[in-house]
Amino acid sequence: MNINGLSASYNTVRKYSESICEPLETEDYVPQPVPFVSPPKWHLAHSTWFFETFILKNFIPDYQVFDKDFSFLFNSYYNNVGERTLRTDRGNVTRPTTANVYAYRQHVDRCMNELMENLTDTNAISMIQLGLHHEQQHQELLVTDIKYILGHNPLFPVYKTGHNLVNAENSETGFLNIKEGVYSIGFEGNGFCFDNELGRHKVYLQEFEISKSLVTNAEYIRFMEDGGYQNFNLWLDEGWSWVNQHAVEAPMYWYKISGEWHYYTLAGLQKVNPDAILSHISFYEAAAFAQWKEMRLPTEAEWEIASDQLQWGQRWEWTNSSYLPYPGFTKAKGAVGEYNGKFMINQMVLRGASVATSPEHSRKTYRNFFHAHERWQYTGIRLAR
Amino acid sequence: MNINGLSASYNTVRKYSESICEPLETEDYVPQPVPFVSPPKWHLAHSTWFFETFILKNFIPDYQVFDKDFSFLFNSYYNNVGERTLRTDRGNVTRPTTANVYAYRQHVDRCMNELMENLTDTNAISMIQLGLHHEQQHQELLVTDIKYILGHNPLFPVYKTGHNLVNAENSETGFLNIKEGVYSIGFEGNGFCFDNELGRHKVYLQEFEISKSLVTNAEYIRFMEDGGYQNFNLWLDEGWSWVNQHAVEAPMYWYKISGEWHYYTLAGLQKVNPDAILSHISFYEAAAFAQWKEMRLPTEAEWEIASDQLQWGQRWEWTNSSYLPYPGFTKAKGAVGEYNGKFMINQMVLRGASVATSPEHSRKTYRNFFHAHERWQYTGIRLAR
Amino acid sequence: MNINGLSASYNTVRKYSESICEPLETEDYVPQPVPFVSPPKWHLAHSTWFFETFILKNFIPDYQVFDKDFSFLFNSYYNNVGERTLRTDRGNVTRPTTANVYAYRQHVDRCMNELMENLTDTNAISMIQLGLHHEQQHQELLVTDIKYILGHNPLFPVYKTGHNLVNAENSETGFLNIKEGVYSIGFEGNGFCFDNELGRHKVYLQEFEISKSLVTNAEYIRFMEDGGYQNFNLWLDEGWSWVNQHAVEAPMYWYKISGEWHYYTLAGLQKVNPDAILSHISFYEAAAFAQWKEMRLPTEAEWEIASDQLQWGQRWEWTNSSYLPYPGFTKAKGAVGEYNGKFMINQMVLRGASVATSPEHSRKTYRNFFHAHERWQYTGIRLAR
Amino acid sequence: MNINGLSASYNTVRKYSESICEPLETEDYVPQPVPFVSPPKWHLAHSTWFFETFILKNFIPDYQVFDKDFSFLFNSYYNNVGERTLRTDRGNVTRPTTANVYAYRQHVDRCMNELMENLTDTNAISMIQLGLHHEQQHQELLVTDIKYILGHNPLFPVYKTGHNLVNAENSETGFLNIKEGVYSIGFEGNGFCFDNELGRHKVYLQEFEISKSLVTNAEYIRFMEDGGYQNFNLWLDEGWSWVNQHAVEAPMYWYKISGEWHYYTLAGLQKVNPDAILSHISFYEAAAFAQWKEMRLPTEAEWEIASDQLQWGQRWEWTNSSYLPYPGFTKAKGAVGEYNGKFMINQMVLRGASVATSPEHSRKTYRNFFHAHERWQYTGIRLAR
Repeated sequence: MNINGLSASYNTVRKYSESICEPLETEDYVPQPVPFVSPPKWHLAHSTWFFETFILKNFIPDYQVFDKDFSFLFNSYYNNVGERTLRTDRGNVTRPTTANVYAYRQHVDRCMNELMENLTDTNAISMIQLGLHHEQQHQELLVTDIKYILGHNPLFPVYKTGHNLVNAENSETGFLNIKEGVYSIGFEGNGFCFDNELGRHKVYLQEFEISKSLVTNAEYIRFMEDGGYQNFNLWLDEGWSWVNQHAVEAPMYWYKISGEWHYYTLAGLQKVNPDAILSHISFYEAAAFAQWKEMRLPTEAEWEIASDQLQWGQRWEWTNSSYLPYPGFTKAKGAVGEYNGKFMINQMVLRGASVATSPEHSRKTYRNFFHAHERWQYTGIRLAR
Repeated sequence: MNINGLSASYNTVRKYSESICEPLETEDYVPQPVPFVSPPKWHLAHSTWFFETFILKNFIPDYQVFDKDFSFLFNSYYNNVGERTLRTDRGNVTRPTTANVYAYRQHVDRCMNELMENLTDTNAISMIQLGLHHEQQHQELLVTDIKYILGHNPLFPVYKTGHNLVNAENSETGFLNIKEGVYSIGFEGNGFCFDNELGRHKVYLQEFEISKSLVTNAEYIRFMEDGGYQNFNLWLDEGWSWVNQHAVEAPMYWYKISGEWHYYTLAGLQKVNPDAILSHISFYEAAAFAQWKEMRLPTEAEWEIASDQLQWGQRWEWTNSSYLPYPGFTKAKGAVGEYNGKFMINQMVLRGASVATSPEHSRKTYRNFFHAHERWQYTGIRLAR
Repeated sequence: MNINGLSASYNTVRKYSESICEPLETEDYVPQPVPFVSPPKWHLAHSTWFFETFILKNFIPDYQVFDKDFSFLFNSYYNNVGERTLRTDRGNVTRPTTANVYAYRQHVDRCMNELMENLTDTNAISMIQLGLHHEQQHQELLVTDIKYILGHNPLFPVYKTGHNLVNAENSETGFLNIKEGVYSIGFEGNGFCFDNELGRHKVYLQEFEISKSLVTNAEYIRFMEDGGYQNFNLWLDEGWSWVNQHAVEAPMYWYKISGEWHYYTLAGLQKVNPDAILSHISFYEAAAFAQWKEMRLPTEAEWEIASDQLQWGQRWEWTNSSYLPYPGFTKAKGAVGEYNGKFMINQMVLRGASVATSPEHSRKTYRNFFHAHERWQYTGIRLAR
Repeated sequence: MNINGLSASYNTVRKYSESICEPLETEDYVPQPVPFVSPPKWHLAHSTWFFETFILKNFIPDYQVFDKDFSFLFNSYYNNVGERTLRTDRGNVTRPTTANVYAYRQHVDRCMNELMENLTDTNAISMIQLGLHHEQQHQELLVTDIKYILGHNPLFPVYKTGHNLVNAENSETGFLNIKEGVYSIGFEGNGFCFDNELGRHKVYLQEFEISKSLVTNAEYIRFMEDGGYQNFNLWLDEGWSWVNQHAVEAPMYWYKISGEWHYYTLAGLQKVNPDAILSHISFYEAAAFAQWKEMRLPTEAEWEIASDQLQWGQRWEWTNSSYLPYPGFTKAKGAVGEYNGKFMINQMVLRGASVATSPEHSRKTYRNFFHAHERWQYTGIRLAR
């Protein structure tokens, strides 16, 4: 990417974050209802902090920080950068105000644009690219965290009229067959990728079939009506504990009202569309559903090999692969090395992309990962056998 | 009180709540950092809900509620009034916005003023009086909750310059002696009181002495420097567990910076004034301090009998009395009966009033009560022997 | 008490502890199913440790301890005596074995008997008396803890055939009237009492009536059948949370089997005897029942003044008094001062004695105390109005 | 295996369980200090329950159970078999006594031996084989659970003099090189294996080197002395939280006494032998150590391919593979299907065997699995690169 392209990308991406927040009231920027959901204000500030910390401070001599306290307030999990606010306290920090945070963004954007005017340092350029992909990741979290905040308000407020992200349907049916053999997975090429995709390497796959469509709401309702949430034989042991401890009876955001299933969407509470693609289920639910269908979830290698022939981009698709390093994976030194490697334990890989994923932020080698119980992302199920 | 007086009181009290919030940013109205601290937005709405629920709905025929969901959102603890938001979720409810809540106040105030124009129903008048005292209680909570929210922000924001509520000093010294004998305590007269003060009754007191001054910061620092927080012999067993579990080393809001004690005040972080009256200590700390001085805390009966000869109004003073019913106490039927009686277990009585108490909201028979570990109120220590 | 009497008492009391454990299997001596229930092995060792620590070590020159580790293992809560096993870990300590503990008892008893042969030191004598009353308190806990351990085994093992402690009925009916006036309460005389009973002092009582009988199972079943556990208006706020959090529906040890109420007794699982006196209820339940009857629980002063004219000894009777110091109460210096004073917070006083109380271990001035939710003791209800 | 061989195996295995418990006192059979450690009494009963439930009840017409309550008490996690004691309550069940449990074993052994006299049903034979391997798994747990119970007693009791299982040293050094290519892993052949080993299948391995020795105490002490437990860069994020939350500073059972490292062994507390193979570390610690050495843990496929050329049997070796199904894995119907499959989430695979593994109970295809934080097994580290 040349420097003009980078500068244009920078401004497009940065503006997109703000456009996501446009329908919000000031109050919506503040709360952190559960530890894994961050306040929108925090996302806007943290993605800005990333540019200030890793680029402006390093590549502009005598750079003056916007506010010396922000490093403490808006560091997420980089131990190498120093102390930070407890993750669970993000929702209690009312100052800086939202207006201050927007001013912080403006300040950093101005400095970044100045810096990019004559930038040739390839380290700086590559950190900026990382910063943009980082901000795009937070854009998806902005969408899902806003949905969580509004969707857990008893009033079910509308984010934006007509903005129902869970309404799309499958355009294909049937199964795709892939033959046994040695295949290669992992990133190759010149574009951007995260370190966890690197190390293109050979894997051996057994013959398998993978569905060309994602599971729909109607199919999942059949699972529910067949007693899926009551039949322990379908569940992983840990999943069965989860179902019972949290009294789970349906996907997240689903409510049975007068005998009919409704769900909260960003356009408000609506009747479930049976033909639409299922969303907001945990890995446990995905695995139980697959067991009920007497099929299974694909591995991430299977998924990647098949991906050229699949439609995707509607849901993050749970795979049956744990998030582990590829052969030859090594962490970068310092804070950037904390980006991915330290999370490679007890999480499951999701492949694809979702309706909340930012434009230009998906690759068939992309390795997303969440804990098995998490379901506030736009997650879905693709079956294999 | 005649109806004109009531109407004037109503508007004065209602306006005072809003004046407390005037220095706030919109974001400050939202969070609930711990379950016992409510969002300012919630206080403004809940005190309004009280008038709507107990007066407008009952005394205006065909009254139209401002919003049918508010009853669910802003009920605090009245089981008789129906379902309500979980207490711990108040900070996650971003809508209605602060502006909506102010509109709700305006709506209710307009209806209340109309109603009061020709009001003669003594039940209504007495419920309005209760509603005003209720709102005054929430005004004190507004102050202490705002202090908690701002004081737990790592930036220590200033609420209002010059507004240091903990700076006042004692104006008297020495001890007052009260002789053994039969005395009467409890409310009598025509003005307003809460049901828990009723039942003026005789008590038998042994001779005692009670301090004319409250404990100062300097005295408490001597306790700390003498190892007060490390000496288990001074503490109640439960207090000792509390000290160790929470690593308590000083009053709430105190921080040792470069070897000197500072505290957060509503005017920002400041050096501790040694001559000022101590504030923000738990009953456990009050009891340990008294033990260290080889004295004790007064009972609430002792306090009330001595109160005519004491200066007070600076701090809520911990007594060594549990919050229990006076002889002959009975709960009113229905929701109003939930006001006080159901809390008469495992709380300690505090007497007096504090610098955060609203004007006209104190009586020598007033029985305030908190749990022994709570210290976000303006609490202090008066010794007896 | 002369020294011969003391020596005889010593051996009687010590033997009685062992007789309580006689029906146990070795395994029954070990577990601590919940933190407040101690292993029988621990009770036997701890009461012995008391004599070794406070008497043998102090009054026998060059006394050799039985085992140097026992001081750590069998200290209960005396911070002045040094470090101790975490209270919650008592059930995991399989060694010393039960046989070792009996050997420890024999060793200490032999030394104690030698010491008592020529004992004239009044401090020693008075500590021995305290040790015997201490052991009697643990005898009652032995009974209630054994009941807890066996009663929570799904097999409901029999402790001793015919040993049903909850079967007795009232012998009197009606109410006793006490006139308003000044009365005196607290211990006076020459016998033994705990420090918390001292300071005989005057109190002023309003006129009241107190029931001559305790509440029966039949009366409590009527409360249950009238929806007592579902009606929040009857409950203290904290009690209502307790009922809901623990899904409480009946007294402890009660089970509904094929539509009929049964309870676990030390003689095994039996049908509830409707005419027997109710047992194993919390303060919350006692208070809710009293509210349902439109009466109240007596205060401890009322109870003590009426006690000469009451039959008692069946149940520890919940009063509506918090456990607080009497006027002039002071703690002894050192470990003995930790016996009572440090628990004077957030507990309620119970008066009387129960069927599990050791012989000679009751007084009308005796102040027992437990937390409001505790119900594994033989607790009951006497009403006042 | 012919039926005589089976019968001999049966009696050998069953007797071996009892021989492990021979040094115990009756009290040692009872406690469950943490949920993952079961009482020895429970292991003896549960492994017996397995034979009674899956063999005697199914293959002996009119079989009379030893005690109808035992099915409830001694089921571990088979939902298909019905209700069971809460896992966390196993340590509170004092009855049946240890003697009863031994009688239960005798009863079942007698019936089993009668049954095996003329047994030809291959389903029964194969279930018996599963039962024996199941009992061998519990034999290893018996050893590690006994170590946990005794090792957490402040007295550090000796299980058996001279019985130090952690004293062995490596017999080889250096690294083994394995070339890139397609390999096959998984069980093949006629002997017994668990269902999770089945489905021999091809995998593609990159070239790697694997250590011929296991990490020693001396090497691990160097890691500790180099600040390994303080350097967040070495740890997985979840591992770093675990270290901080539990204040982990050394392997399990290690204590620094007067400046020297000691560990609890089954022969009592001893000085750490620096040349012995490290044991009792979590996956987190294994991964951090590997990071510190700038190497990594092997995957389970790498381990299996190299295993023919490795000495092993000292420690369960943490691999960097999650416990997931092999291609084509399917669960058996009913209770037996619960044996392995439902645990295939959030656990890591360990390969090899340990000094506590029962004779004849190891295979190079054996897939052991534990959670990343668990370390009461005899776990160790083998490095790869």
